Amino acid sequence: MTPSVRRSFVVAASLFTLAGAPLGAQGTPLASWNDGPTKRAIMTFVRATTDRSSAQYVAPDDRIATFDNDGTLWVEHPLYTQAAFALDRVGALAPQHPDWKTTEPFKSVLERDETAIAKFTEADWEKIVAATHSGMTVEAFNDLAADWLARATDKRFKRHYTELVYQPMLELLAYLRQNGYKTYIVTGGGQDFVRAFASRVYGVPREQVVGTASKTKFTIGESGKPELIKAPDILYVDDKTGKPEGIHLVIGRRPRAAFGNSDGDEEMLQWTQSGGGARLMLLVHHDDAQREYAYGPDTKVGTFSNELMDVATKGGWTVVSMKKDWRRIFPFDP
Amino acid sequence: MTPSVRRSFVVAASLFTLAGAPLGAQGTPLASWNDGPTKRAIMTFVRATTDRSSAQYVAPDDRIATFDNDGTLWVEHPLYTQAAFALDRVGALAPQHPDWKTTEPFKSVLERDETAIAKFTEADWEKIVAATHSGMTVEAFNDLAADWLARATDKRFKRHYTELVYQPMLELLAYLRQNGYKTYIVTGGGQDFVRAFASRVYGVPREQVVGTASKTKFTIGESGKPELIKAPDILYVDDKTGKPEGIHLVIGRRPRAAFGNSDGDEEMLQWTQSGGGARLMLLVHHDDAQREYAYGPDTKVGTFSNELMDVATKGGWTVVSMKKDWRRIFPFDP
Repeated sequence: MTPSVRRSFVVAASLFTLAGAPLGAQGTPLASWNDGPTKRAIMTFVRATTDRSSAQYVAPDDRIATFDNDGTLWVEHPLYTQAAFALDRVGALAPQHPDWKTTEPFKSVLERDETAIAKFTEADWEKIVAATHSGMTVEAFNDLAADWLARATDKRFKRHYTELVYQPMLELLAYLRQNGYKTYIVTGGGQDFVRAFASRVYGVPREQVVGTASKTKFTIGESGKPELIKAPDILYVDDKTGKPEGIHLVIGRRPRAAFGNSDGDEEMLQWTQSGGGARLMLLVHHDDAQREYAYGPDTKVGTFSNELMDVATKGGWTVVSMKKDWRRIFPFDP
Repeated sequence: MTPSVRRSFVVAASLFTLAGAPLGAQGTPLASWNDGPTKRAIMTFVRATTDRSSAQYVAPDDRIATFDNDGTLWVEHPLYTQAAFALDRVGALAPQHPDWKTTEPFKSVLERDETAIAKFTEADWEKIVAATHSGMTVEAFNDLAADWLARATDKRFKRHYTELVYQPMLELLAYLRQNGYKTYIVTGGGQDFVRAFASRVYGVPREQVVGTASKTKFTIGESGKPELIKAPDILYVDDKTGKPEGIHLVIGRRPRAAFGNSDGDEEMLQWTQSGGGARLMLLVHHDDAQREYAYGPDTKVGTFSNELMDVATKGGWTVVSMKKDWRRIFPFDP
């Protein structure tokens, strides 16, 4: 491929991404998945649950597929994208908070002390998220997140974060939807943050994003206009046991297929599997340091533990090897 | 109409109801609505927001319509149906709770003391709901509610509660859906209770029911199987300010049209209206003691206050007179 042809291709690919989720270059489903047991497991599941003559047929209303976001649909290393957003927001808000110069965890953020940031506890992050994700209307927050995503870039790939989505997973979302599945995102990340881009990037509408949610407060604003203000308090955390709980709250149905990449997804996949009948439980294993990252089982990095790999093996779950199963990683890959 | 023809008609009408929401006897939209300003307001709104050449055109993704349930879609008098369910559950569970014979509010329920029940405080009802709606899997609760609804009947009409739905509102739900609107129920009642019948009765799928939600707890049951158990604690109350908050949580979009009948719906309608552009805010006024009930403004019964009527008048909201605007009230009406 000449450089200019490649460039056109990249542009075309990103247009496809913007329009929802591409079928893949050839118009065939799952074109970026290499042939093998993983791709077969997906296609077998979809055929079994959508073929009316199959004993495992599932009525369209019950075709629910839930996807974790960070590390499952887009890159989560070296830092969750939402964390990068929150750190940038600390910088933007600092002039209004002179005390942050001397108060942790804000001090380390303002000093760009990456070693300190890497050691932040959950409580530190909660403080940062509470300070940067509240006190504004839900629309204002949506605009802030969307604007930031349109500007910010990842250090390694020099790409917008919304470009660092996995092409095979975009194809999987599209393939499931073409087969009557309703695709949901079920993320430990902020529900409102993910809503700011899920439709454009994944073709998943706002009402199909389940995530960690802060409380909101309905109030009549200064202008006399009703407003919904994001509060600093968390309503519920959509991670681990919170995933099946959040699924029940927002969807009210047990998924037929669930996709994740970490210990935080274990309960969602267990809950999915225990419904009986044909179910698809899939975990993405990041084992491709060259094209993306390698972490998880047998490394001391990330949150895909050896215990989770054991659970997956015993449960007959499908584990994706990014290295072996994915022909392309990103939409901009050749 | 001869009695036997009438009987066939009633059977046909209830079959339509079971299948979702009927178009009305003539196959024309809103057939059970009398001509007049109310029906015109609905049709004008729908045309303005769905006609591509209209300045008020709304893209399909943003066509969200939210409906209160009790008193808006089905009868709420003399007692909310869910309250009748909870009282029956107290009776069913009493053998396991010998202390209830001497402990209020359970004592009054077991003694069928209607005067005492009529005076129950919100705290009394919370105790009753906590005791009768928790400690079981979400599926078991769904079955309990569905089974009860299949058996229990209303005293005045001698009908199943799910037959006491308003035919004009079923037609309105259908009309909006035919015009690309996604119809949601947004109820102060229990989300899981309404999910048990919303699809069959209103054609509204489980994931489009927003309601007061209890917490659930994911746990591995005795058999080693993952279970979601309904907890006695409330996660959030979907009433008054809780309605726009619940809408943001589950839908993440501001409705274009909102339908209610009480003070508990005021904020939902305010929130809807303040989005600007063409919006439809509608309140059902129960002013038909003969065919249903008469309560609300200028009576001392019910929760449609004179203040709400003032807000509706000032805001240009549409107020339905059941007596004048509805040709039929129930699907079984002639």
